[in-house]
Amino acid sequence: MSEPMRTLDYADGVITMIDQTELPHREVWLEIDNVADLVSAIKRLSVRGAPAIGVAGAYGVVMAARLADPTESGGPFDEAVAAIRAARPTAVNLGYRVDQVTPIARSEGFEAAEAEAHRIRDEEIVSSSAMGERGADFVLELAGKEAVRAMTICNTGGLAAVERGTALAVVQTLHERGALTEALPLETRPLLQGGRLTTWELERMGAPFRLIVDSAGPFLLARGAADVVVIGADRIAANGDTANKIGSFSLALAARHAGVPFVVVAPESTVDMSTASGEDIEIEDRGSGEVANVGRVPIAAAGTPAWNPAFDVTPADLITAIVTDRRVVRVGAGETI
Amino acid sequence: MSEPMRTLDYADGVITMIDQTELPHREVWLEIDNVADLVSAIKRLSVRGAPAIGVAGAYGVVMAARLADPTESGGPFDEAVAAIRAARPTAVNLGYRVDQVTPIARSEGFEAAEAEAHRIRDEEIVSSSAMGERGADFVLELAGKEAVRAMTICNTGGLAAVERGTALAVVQTLHERGALTEALPLETRPLLQGGRLTTWELERMGAPFRLIVDSAGPFLLARGAADVVVIGADRIAANGDTANKIGSFSLALAARHAGVPFVVVAPESTVDMSTASGEDIEIEDRGSGEVANVGRVPIAAAGTPAWNPAFDVTPADLITAIVTDRRVVRVGAGETI
Repeated sequence: MSEPMRTLDYADGVITMIDQTELPHREVWLEIDNVADLVSAIKRLSVRGAPAIGVAGAYGVVMAARLADPTESGGPFDEAVAAIRAARPTAVNLGYRVDQVTPIARSEGFEAAEAEAHRIRDEEIVSSSAMGERGADFVLELAGKEAVRAMTICNTGGLAAVERGTALAVVQTLHERGALTEALPLETRPLLQGGRLTTWELERMGAPFRLIVDSAGPFLLARGAADVVVIGADRIAANGDTANKIGSFSLALAARHAGVPFVVVAPESTVDMSTASGEDIEIEDRGSGEVANVGRVPIAAAGTPAWNPAFDVTPADLITAIVTDRRVVRVGAGETI
Repeated sequence: MSEPMRTLDYADGVITMIDQTELPHREVWLEIDNVADLVSAIKRLSVRGAPAIGVAGAYGVVMAARLADPTESGGPFDEAVAAIRAARPTAVNLGYRVDQVTPIARSEGFEAAEAEAHRIRDEEIVSSSAMGERGADFVLELAGKEAVRAMTICNTGGLAAVERGTALAVVQTLHERGALTEALPLETRPLLQGGRLTTWELERMGAPFRLIVDSAGPFLLARGAADVVVIGADRIAANGDTANKIGSFSLALAARHAGVPFVVVAPESTVDMSTASGEDIEIEDRGSGEVANVGRVPIAAAGTPAWNPAFDVTPADLITAIVTDRRVVRVGAGETI
């Protein structure tokens, strides 16, 4: 068992974070002491994952309040906050966390803002631990076994949070309890977060695993290769429909076909009661480049047109349960959020 | 409409073939005039696809009979034939075609062998045309529309045959009839035959298409993005269960869920009546390297373990019909092979 990994932290005016763009080939830690560098790190995806981006944004506001007077309206502090907020416009959690810290910085000053950002960081850590414990309990109960084989997609580990993560927190907790027979991470095209990041985390935690291509997941489920599928969530609609990385739907369909439980693990903040169902979720197309290239390497002819839905929507009726930091909702058994 | 593309041919002691390892970035044609170079081309996958490899093998025997006395037992001719046969041990069609030409070379000489190899080439061309026409008729009848959107996986086009291919022959015929709204090829990890080769063929035939990552296929089917799925086959068991590139099963499951027809297109020679069902088909694991790398580019940490099933098995009950060069078998409606 390795020491706990905190992928992002702050002390004395410096944000320390692992540079995810260098993984898995190099473990590079960034030390960021100004807002421009933080914005640049968020934009180039050195930090990714909703909780991690949110915490980075919170500390960004602290950094801005340290370098400029937060009580001066329309000055450098406000400009810095706006730049952080705009670094990834679609990351809802970034704006949410920035908006928690900013008014405190304005009204109570730098030290109160720092305390609030630390509170947010600790809240994420506690939340991940809770999801890991509750999810592991639930998965073992569902499987009725002492150890399970768990399939997962994308990266939902400590890299996406501050520590441990969401679905991968469940895998990690199972492993720490000696209850993980094998993890089967999907590589997760187009951006390969599973192949690049989840394998790195599993290796680091000493968990047994084998990487698979995305399209092997459904077939291996049909052949009985896993006892459970655990995934994260980008957004959960009021009826339980879950938007997550492209490929999640395919796993859910195959899990149902194979009689394998399909479990969504996400913090309560992912539930969006203003979205009635998956029908209301617009699927973002991220353009041809990510499909026609792997990293910077072209795999199709230049100019090849592609359709690149970034995520998909799994209907609630294919989901066994949603595990959050506070509860287990057995949507498959008719429970509602 | 471009001119017909013959990806492999023979004249005057020289086999001409497009080098598939250079696609899609460069169109390189190999001119091969000796058996050692042919064996090397087969081994490094410059030619791939069962029909294409078989025809290459047939012409290889002709080349051997031209360069050495085929009536001399145990001499250079026999050695050359053995080397061709062994170039890809798992390619059943290679041995089958070599064994058709070799006894004719021995008993009737070089010219008769050449005629037999040409006959085999022409047989493959006629077979592909027949599959294309019959498949297009059937797909349009199933869809009840004048034009369709067709999803497909891997490369099953002229590159895999001599001309036109199997499932992609159906797509090409639809396009030539003005009955193809859009093709949606899956990129087909790990070796990306869809991204590298099928896009190149679709571009060349002027067909409208968009490339998608493998895991997007099932979700896009659920969202009504295609009217039919057409795939090729590595082997069809007596009960209709079909082994094909990994990812085929996942599409079949999603096609059933979406109420979209799922059609297998393959020559009669693909039917293996000695295999009772998919249960009897062993799934080859092609090792970690193909998954941990894209081409020569590592995407996971060195030494990452992977599980790499090269193909999967789609049960007959998920298949609407099997279209061959001679017939349509509606396995989904209870017809048997």
